[in-house]
Formats: sequence, C-alpha cells, structure tokens
Amino acid sequence: MQLIALKGIQKIKKGDDLGELIARAAQEQNLQFEENDVIVVAQTIVSKAEGNVIDLREVKPSELAGRIASQLDKDSREVEVILRQSSEIVRLRHVLIARTKHGFVCANAGVDHSNVDSEHVTILPDDPDASAAKIREAIKRKLGVDVAVILSDTQGRAFRLGCMGVAVGVAGMNPLRDLQGRRDLYGKELKATITSPADALAAASVLVMGEASEGTPVVVVKGASYDRSQGSARGLVRPPEQDLFR
Amino acid sequence: MQLIALKGIQKIKKGDDLGELIARAAQEQNLQFEENDVIVVAQTIVSKAEGNVIDLREVKPSELAGRIASQLDKDSREVEVILRQSSEIVRLRHVLIARTKHGFVCANAGVDHSNVDSEHVTILPDDPDASAAKIREAIKRKLGVDVAVILSDTQGRAFRLGCMGVAVGVAGMNPLRDLQGRRDLYGKELKATITSPADALAAASVLVMGEASEGTPVVVVKGASYDRSQGSARGLVRPPEQDLFR
Repeated sequence: MQLIALKGIQKIKKGDDLGELIARAAQEQNLQFEENDVIVVAQTIVSKAEGNVIDLREVKPSELAGRIASQLDKDSREVEVILRQSSEIVRLRHVLIARTKHGFVCANAGVDHSNVDSEHVTILPDDPDASAAKIREAIKRKLGVDVAVILSDTQGRAFRLGCMGVAVGVAGMNPLRDLQGRRDLYGKELKATITSPADALAAASVLVMGEASEGTPVVVVKGASYDRSQGSARGLVRPPEQDLFR
Repeated sequence: MQLIALKGIQKIKKGDDLGELIARAAQEQNLQFEENDVIVVAQTIVSKAEGNVIDLREVKPSELAGRIASQLDKDSREVEVILRQSSEIVRLRHVLIARTKHGFVCANAGVDHSNVDSEHVTILPDDPDASAAKIREAIKRKLGVDVAVILSDTQGRAFRLGCMGVAVGVAGMNPLRDLQGRRDLYGKELKATITSPADALAAASVLVMGEASEGTPVVVVKGASYDRSQGSARGLVRPPEQDLFR
C-alpha cells in the first residue's frame, strides 16, 4: 500500500471545484489514478469550497452559549456555532464533546478555527458523503477513473492521547469491512470481525498530510484493501445504545 | 509513505527470536531495511514468542469471574484471565472494558482467543516496549540498521464501529508528535498540536496485515513522519483525570 501526498492544492476558496483541482494536480504531478485508488481529502478544504465557513462577527451567542463559554474559557460565538452543530452534548468538561447532526461524537462538534483567520470557524460539511461523491464524480468526469473518496477529519480520542484522522464522509467504498466467516490460523471463525478501512486510511493519510502551512490536504492511496460497494460514513457511528463506554 | 507486508512469518512458537525471523524474511523478500523504516509487528505473534499464552485448563476461575462470565455469556476461565490482566474495570455491559496493567483501556484487557487453539488465550506482553526494543536490537545486530518498531493490537473504539490497529509497544520512536509552535496557513499557532504517528502507523499496518489465516503479521513502513527520539507506548495513555469521556 502506498500513500502519496498530492502537491499544489493550497488555499481553497468558496466555489472551488475540488474534484477538478485534484484531477489537475494529479496530472501536473504525473500521478496516474487507478480504479482501486482512494483519494483522502481533508475536511477543512471541503468545508471551505462549500462555503461552510462561519463569520463569528455575525453570530449572536445565546445565554447558554455564554455560560458554557465562560466555563470553558472559550469564545461564546464559537460555542454558539458548536451548539447549532450538535444534536447532543456528550460531555462538558475542559472541552465540549458533542454528537454532530451526522451522528459523530467529537470535540466541538467538528467546529474548527485552524486554517481560517481569527474571526472565522469551519463547520463540517452538511452531507459529507455527498461532498465525497461530488469529488468522486468530478474525477471520473475529468480522468475517466472510478476512485473511492474519503473526507478526513482530525479528532481526539476517549482513552488515548494524540489526535487521529477519521473518516467523516465516503464515496465508492464501504467504510467497514466484515471479515465474518474468515478463519484464523487454527480454523476458528474470527471474533472481532468488523474492521474500518475508511478510518485506517484516514489515520494514515492525515499522518502523510502533516499539519499546518506545509501541509498537503489531499493524499492518494494505492493498493488498499477495502470493499468497493457503496456506503456511508454514518455507518461508522456506533449506535448510542451499543455504546460501550458510557 | 509505503507499507509492505513481510512474507513468510506464519505460525510462531514460544522461544522464537522474532527480530531474527523478521531480518531473515526481509532478506528472502529482497527487502532492504533503512534507518527511517518502522517495523509494525502484530501483538499476537509477540505474545506467542514470549510464551504469553495461557492454557485455560489450568485456570481456576474465582467466584467473581464466574458471575461476570454468566452475565456476559463467556468462559469463566477466560474472564478470570481478563481480571488478572486488569488494573480497573471501566465498563461491564455486553463486553468487559478494562484498563490493563500497562494503562491501556480496551475490551477484555487485551486477552484474545483468536489465532490460538480453543483451550488457549493470548495476553498482552508484560512489557510491550521492551518486546519492541528486543526486536529492534535483533534487527540491528543482524542487518546493522536502526529501525523503529511498533507492536500493534486490534481494538474496538468508544463511539465508532470497526476495530482499529493501535500501538501497545514502541521502540526507537516517540509515539506522539507535538506540532506546537507550527503555524497554520494564516500564521495562527496550531491548537490540536499532539498527533499520534504510532497509532496512525498501527492502524494502517493492521489494514495491510489483513486478518485470519491469510494474514501477514509484520508490515514494513517506509517514508513515515515521526520523531526518532526514545519513547514508550504508555505515553499514549490519556491520564484518567484528563479523560474526556467519563
């Protein structure tokens, strides 16, 4: 398996066609896309291209947002945006852990103030699977190749330190892989049968992307094992009633 | 970044020198190790080589183990092994989530009955960093190359479906990477400054390893970004008082 950072995709602005830009960057880098390739795209640039950037000067914080903001020593306008993005507050201690409207549990409901100026924040795309599908279709149109696309975000974790890349949107792939029926070295059926290729690829790609100004927000993965059936990143959400850690 | 599955390492037995076996397999595959390479080794084969395999027929379950076993519909001898491996029971519902004596929070305290026959389970190595260091030293002795080594385990997650590879032992690398001081595209200092190269590499490698009988328990990673300072996988454990999800 090989991960290649795509060069030449830097500051993205509203209305940019990411699929087009990715296809062009690949051609300029002499990088041939193939059917099994997975293109991992950082959520930030997708949010920017789709205009999911909120001007904090236009946000009127509610009283609740004000109270949470002073408790967490945060900007009350940012907290207001977080609350609007949330379907449930999971924890409120040091940071705000929320369930997004898509179902993902993460810090600040995915609201991020990095890589935008100080009066703006980015929010997750409305429908990250659709955003991934749009990129996939543009690549198919431009290069004639049917790749899979993952939208990655960088998130903290419950019991381990260090942020990790995770998949918040997918197109052209099943984010999970069921190994049920396969047998181990002793012929026993496998127990931990569900793996997550989408999250594993997001984690590896975010490592390759790096962070900050020298970062490259698009990574091309070649030779990955995953199922090419259709799927949604919402399939990665553990149903709350099956949640093992609450 | 490139991930290459190492061929020819299959059934491992107690006393096998994994570093030697890995070095020999690399030579047979004509795979040159280089200074920056990371060798990711599945915990199962390390536990087997070190004799961390428990014969359930020799385990006398306590009364507590018996009660938990009937609650979870599990083998009481296996529950007894899990309790012995645990420093804290974090959750007990459907599955047993425990903190291992190393500090990791995971299902069944890392006790695993896959890839061993039905009367045995594997437990995590006593000191996974030391196990990684031993492999690293054997490779250095045999090939003269100073690689980094990660011991990977496959674990479930709090709020997302699908198991992921994580690092339970490291040698020759810092499992975390602090990006503090780096600036984003707008010159702002990065906020989410700590990433986990060790876990990202473990996640990607476990995907390449596959599972079950056709699996390859050793993966060589070339061109990864990480800090070559010394470190311990215990550095990945979020201190319980900083735990954001309880």
